[in-house]
Amino acid sequence: MPSNKRAARGLRVGVVGATGMVGAELLGVLEKRRFPVGELLPFSSGRSEKAVRFRGRSLRAPGVDRAALASCALVFFVSADEVSLKLAPGLARAGVWCVDDSSAFRLDPAVPLVIPEVNADALSFDQRLIAGPNCTMTGLAVAGWPLHRAGRVSEARIASYQAVSGAGRAALEEFFGQAKSGQRSLAFDGAGRAPSLSPRKARALPAQIFANVIPQVGRFDERGCSSEENKVAAELKKVWNAPEMLVSVTAVRVPVVRGHSVSAWLRLERPLAPKAAAALLAKAPGARLSPEGRYPTPLDCGGKDPVLAGRLRQGALPDELCLWVVSDNLLKGAALNSVQVAEELLRRRWLAS
Amino acid sequence: MPSNKRAARGLRVGVVGATGMVGAELLGVLEKRRFPVGELLPFSSGRSEKAVRFRGRSLRAPGVDRAALASCALVFFVSADEVSLKLAPGLARAGVWCVDDSSAFRLDPAVPLVIPEVNADALSFDQRLIAGPNCTMTGLAVAGWPLHRAGRVSEARIASYQAVSGAGRAALEEFFGQAKSGQRSLAFDGAGRAPSLSPRKARALPAQIFANVIPQVGRFDERGCSSEENKVAAELKKVWNAPEMLVSVTAVRVPVVRGHSVSAWLRLERPLAPKAAAALLAKAPGARLSPEGRYPTPLDCGGKDPVLAGRLRQGALPDELCLWVVSDNLLKGAALNSVQVAEELLRRRWLAS
Repeated sequence: MPSNKRAARGLRVGVVGATGMVGAELLGVLEKRRFPVGELLPFSSGRSEKAVRFRGRSLRAPGVDRAALASCALVFFVSADEVSLKLAPGLARAGVWCVDDSSAFRLDPAVPLVIPEVNADALSFDQRLIAGPNCTMTGLAVAGWPLHRAGRVSEARIASYQAVSGAGRAALEEFFGQAKSGQRSLAFDGAGRAPSLSPRKARALPAQIFANVIPQVGRFDERGCSSEENKVAAELKKVWNAPEMLVSVTAVRVPVVRGHSVSAWLRLERPLAPKAAAALLAKAPGARLSPEGRYPTPLDCGGKDPVLAGRLRQGALPDELCLWVVSDNLLKGAALNSVQVAEELLRRRWLAS
Repeated sequence: MPSNKRAARGLRVGVVGATGMVGAELLGVLEKRRFPVGELLPFSSGRSEKAVRFRGRSLRAPGVDRAALASCALVFFVSADEVSLKLAPGLARAGVWCVDDSSAFRLDPAVPLVIPEVNADALSFDQRLIAGPNCTMTGLAVAGWPLHRAGRVSEARIASYQAVSGAGRAALEEFFGQAKSGQRSLAFDGAGRAPSLSPRKARALPAQIFANVIPQVGRFDERGCSSEENKVAAELKKVWNAPEMLVSVTAVRVPVVRGHSVSAWLRLERPLAPKAAAALLAKAPGARLSPEGRYPTPLDCGGKDPVLAGRLRQGALPDELCLWVVSDNLLKGAALNSVQVAEELLRRRWLAS
């Protein structure tokens, strides 16, 4: 833990996208974990100038200023891909540590994609642009890591149950609005039948999300896979350093505020009994395994740091494990992971205040 | 279609559990499909006497009367396992056709478990007790049937997204109540952060379902599988007559009113390309395949007869297909299937008015 003195000196830290939903979480995480911020430079990624709150004060968040960012020791990108693409490579070349939560560089072979509990060893002093992973795969990447390390996963099948906050603020506001108006139609009819709701217009999401689930996250490619499904598959392979692993994903949005869940089937080259797997998972850094007969739900993970796992059991085949994982998509899936990456840079003294 | 004249003579039809949620749907289906009911004898499965509506009239639904049921040509059981266990075998032996929607006899080797589009050939004139399947597997059993028939499924992995109505009226009322009170907490905080809801008390379901998902449907066995997961696996094997098939299921309750969805991975002994599989599925009786790039959601299936499929694509392996299926759990998953079984008995003239 950094001392107050050190925090008083502290680092100049930029946040691009500070006025967004993940931006708000990031500022909260920096504060809560006493990250040694000496001076905070928050930027709105849009054109509108707004204010953010940090350490009890209100700070202006103007549009992005490249020169100001270049004066920082560390910049967090929690904004759109285009913004990261435009700014991060140049800043990193100029020596600024850039921790990017967008998907712009995740699959770039030159850029480490880092979940500190899993592959902190992918960090390099000479590569100052570091990507953080997709929020849907993060939970499984952390909880499944000890199983992969011990047994080597050859095939993974993943069905997701993704919170609306993962789609951004407009989607969440759409859900809130639908919940407020839609709850009136939740009533049995005169004959005792459950209502058949009619789907209503949706703008931010491809269909009504209140009282519904939507098996589309992102756009479909020519093989019928969504961009989210492709991200989860490719990023899991990269973070686990398992290029040969076969991964199939069905990504589904569910009417949950925060907390992405996945049901995963993992086939292992060296089979592990569920009990042996549970013993490994119980010691996994960043993960917590529910006791037998219990399990986490999205409501249990909101605002919590660890990834929550449960329902560990045998899958369809003797060499297969089945696992349920829930994690806060805005924290471990985004803001927290970015700060943990920066903490790892501090620990290595690559980043000094 | 039966003529009005025939309907005027019609059958004496008993409904055990007529005052329940599936009971209300069943009466609606009988009416809508002009099933030749001459006289309807509705029974409440509980002790409380209630009324039901049928063909615009209100009918008393007293507690079960065994003698009255024995006078029927056909009895639908849409009630608890215990009620079916107590009454159905005796009635069937006495010659009454009993179509049972409970899970009491589904896995009894002497009892056909029937989805007419799939295995009407399992019906036998001498076995008058007929079981209908679990509502979670019905959609997949119908939509996956042409794929199984053409390619023989050897392994199935299924993640479900199950509507609250599948858990009965008390669960649905709990969801409605939580939605009404819970929507007030759906707001960003002063710092622009998404809310972290606190789980509240639940009685009918094992956890809060509003703005949550629950990976428990039924009780867990010693291997960590829930009773629902075991039902789906065993019943799919029976209906498809695929005793060797390996099936692994994760059953998850989601905050949806009606419409169970599943994401399924099916490995085939004789591989099918997704396009060939789509051509088969497009002709499957009782199923409808969404055009490429589109897909069904639970809100699309409410009150509709066919099973809706979409997102047909390759799975993790070249011999594997991935499929999304949605169906109305109260209709094809329960009431409609029961009436379709009875219609098949009429078609064979085993049941005559």
